Amino acid sequence: MKQFEGYTYTDGGVCAAKGFKANGLYCGIDVAMKQAHEMDLVANGVDKKSLKNDLGMFVSDEVCNTAAVYTTNKVKGAPIIVTKKNLEITGGRARAVIVNSKNANTSNRDGITKAEQMCSCTAEVLGIKPEEVVVASTGVIGIPLPIEPIVSHVKELAEGLSYDGNEKAVNAIMTTDTVPKEVAVTFDINGIKCTLGGMAKGSGMIHPNMATTLNFVTTDVAISAGLIQKALSEVVKITYNCLSIDGDTSTNDMVCVMANGLAGNDEIVAEGPEYEAFKQALYIVMMNMTRMLAKDGEGATKLIECTVSKARDLDTAIIVAKSVISSSLFKCMIFGEDANWGRIACAIGYADCDVDIEKIDVDMASAKGTLEVCRGGYGVDFSEDFAKEVLSEDEIMVNISLNDGEAEATAWGCDLTYDYVKINGDYRS
Amino acid sequence: MKQFEGYTYTDGGVCAAKGFKANGLYCGIDVAMKQAHEMDLVANGVDKKSLKNDLGMFVSDEVCNTAAVYTTNKVKGAPIIVTKKNLEITGGRARAVIVNSKNANTSNRDGITKAEQMCSCTAEVLGIKPEEVVVASTGVIGIPLPIEPIVSHVKELAEGLSYDGNEKAVNAIMTTDTVPKEVAVTFDINGIKCTLGGMAKGSGMIHPNMATTLNFVTTDVAISAGLIQKALSEVVKITYNCLSIDGDTSTNDMVCVMANGLAGNDEIVAEGPEYEAFKQALYIVMMNMTRMLAKDGEGATKLIECTVSKARDLDTAIIVAKSVISSSLFKCMIFGEDANWGRIACAIGYADCDVDIEKIDVDMASAKGTLEVCRGGYGVDFSEDFAKEVLSEDEIMVNISLNDGEAEATAWGCDLTYDYVKINGDYRS
Repeated sequence: MKQFEGYTYTDGGVCAAKGFKANGLYCGIDVAMKQAHEMDLVANGVDKKSLKNDLGMFVSDEVCNTAAVYTTNKVKGAPIIVTKKNLEITGGRARAVIVNSKNANTSNRDGITKAEQMCSCTAEVLGIKPEEVVVASTGVIGIPLPIEPIVSHVKELAEGLSYDGNEKAVNAIMTTDTVPKEVAVTFDINGIKCTLGGMAKGSGMIHPNMATTLNFVTTDVAISAGLIQKALSEVVKITYNCLSIDGDTSTNDMVCVMANGLAGNDEIVAEGPEYEAFKQALYIVMMNMTRMLAKDGEGATKLIECTVSKARDLDTAIIVAKSVISSSLFKCMIFGEDANWGRIACAIGYADCDVDIEKIDVDMASAKGTLEVCRGGYGVDFSEDFAKEVLSEDEIMVNISLNDGEAEATAWGCDLTYDYVKINGDYRS
Repeated sequence: MKQFEGYTYTDGGVCAAKGFKANGLYCGIDVAMKQAHEMDLVANGVDKKSLKNDLGMFVSDEVCNTAAVYTTNKVKGAPIIVTKKNLEITGGRARAVIVNSKNANTSNRDGITKAEQMCSCTAEVLGIKPEEVVVASTGVIGIPLPIEPIVSHVKELAEGLSYDGNEKAVNAIMTTDTVPKEVAVTFDINGIKCTLGGMAKGSGMIHPNMATTLNFVTTDVAISAGLIQKALSEVVKITYNCLSIDGDTSTNDMVCVMANGLAGNDEIVAEGPEYEAFKQALYIVMMNMTRMLAKDGEGATKLIECTVSKARDLDTAIIVAKSVISSSLFKCMIFGEDANWGRIACAIGYADCDVDIEKIDVDMASAKGTLEVCRGGYGVDFSEDFAKEVLSEDEIMVNISLNDGEAEATAWGCDLTYDYVKINGDYRS
């Protein structure tokens, strides 16, 4: 992982910061869905991961200043609607998160009621208010969520909460993910050690995000909810929103940041060096999770990192970088390890922004070296053998210089493979 | 094919209308590229179709009123730039089309010069002006076009022109297409028999169009270039621009309509019944070719037709229909014959327009029957067995009612399959 001065990677994910306990377990949502809907879930692949946890919880010892960003999809999962309402009621104060996989609780008539039930039963066992609970769900859309397995397991889930329960919790939010995704860093604010960590899930329907991307970040920094929201909005723009696996923006995407203040620093209530230190920690954690999500994109064999530099402004850099990493033809070509760079030019050309094609330079790079493919908008001769060598690596960089300014942005994606098609031809989990 | 009253399908493609001759041959662009660039073209799959024609021409006995629409990609193939300039010089008058496959003549420093050479050598052998020639190229981007094989074969190509040479010509524009695409209709304007026909190529980098979509339409109707342009712009919006194979908009897309007036009708110079009859013929031919392109999308096993009805306006209907047929997750689900309709809801939800999700009804249909999956924005119970049966067909309809107005539009696409990935992992042809 890329190193940043003053920040040290650490273990623990959402339990890395002081005062956060977590837990996860298998409550049987898949079996309940099977019984209710007479689905052949084995044939549909729904219970192929039935030993995996499907219900997770994490709780802070103290109430947290909390901010969140949500999917822009007009079809919003019921948990999104309920979480948003809860944070409005409390003015951005939360204590706990309850989250399930296997069913997204979306496009069902009773979705809101069930999301509220998840909050109220969690609140009851924890002795907090229902509106202090953040609720999230991920999985299949349009099939009613079986609420009984959740309600009947919340007590056991709460009793098992521990300061090192992050692995059980992150396991509970995985769907087609092949690896759990956790990142945490420690850093210093005015001589006080602070920690910020998180967990995320992938790995399809990501543009920016998954069937659904959920991302939870916890920290012991003392900081106002308003400043968390500001930092989150800025950081999400250059991390999660620069991620595309398949161009599908999910109904249940959410990034939620909770800060309980237990590090003991003076609460950050205005911009300044302390705010910048916090924002940088948030960037490091979210950028690394974005990278992990890209690398574990459904069926992916290669991580693709596209950096656009010398753009006239940040938005232009982001739009061009995302256009390239979103191109299906480009993604197939990376899978095939074929330096057919015309597809990069093509994707730059249809990006929805103002670009002078005749100024563009393009390189493709990996640990094996850098291959120049385009200068001033035109192709340059290159060695096919060297191209094959560069593209044989599992992390591929595409570096585009627009030679038109000073702004820079990176977007992350993955190759498009047989396995993406296979996974999504019979998902329904 | 869908029947339209007053219009009769006929054979002949671009040669169906009076006074159009065509021809096609293999001139060896692939071998020349191989020699010049020391590419291992066998490994890259470039010459796997080397027995296929790579150079086509068609010519009208009389000069034609001509209109065209071009790709919106900012990277434009040199032939696009030259054709546009030629039609500006002549005020929309053309006699001939020269077109090659295997190389798109795009992103090369000498591209314009070579596209102009293609026009001038064609003009010379035909005894017409270079600016009366429409030029088009399709194939790999960013590798210099070998001009020698083209120049040295133009005479042979012209000598072989015939009134039934359309099959040779359409063969010359195919790239990854598995079937040639030709449609023609006869119809009546004030008692005079008229004909309008065309040919098109697919089948990747289509959004709306291919690596590259080229579409040529010829007619013997007498009609002004201005009215052709008007009809073409209206028809392309609801046909080609409602087609998406893979979300990639090509650098070389072009639709060109040529009308030589040999049917003998009074020239149509104003809107009215005659203009409408022409426009309907253009719609029928272009809609059918759009459908053929979708069905022959790279690696496709199923045609998907998404019709959005009761929309508040045409643009909303188009945007929603295109959003659905462009979704990778939806396309994989159709390949897997899985009625995971939440992905349709999701794609409606992120369509960039104003839609009231709670009013939406969704059906999936095929020759086997109609499956209701959503009413008023929420899922309805359905039989998984019947769903499997409906989705087992090779033409799948998705019918979405927005219940918010009277407008309707259809978009066409195809499933996303292993073969799409395979074809595009080692294309470079």
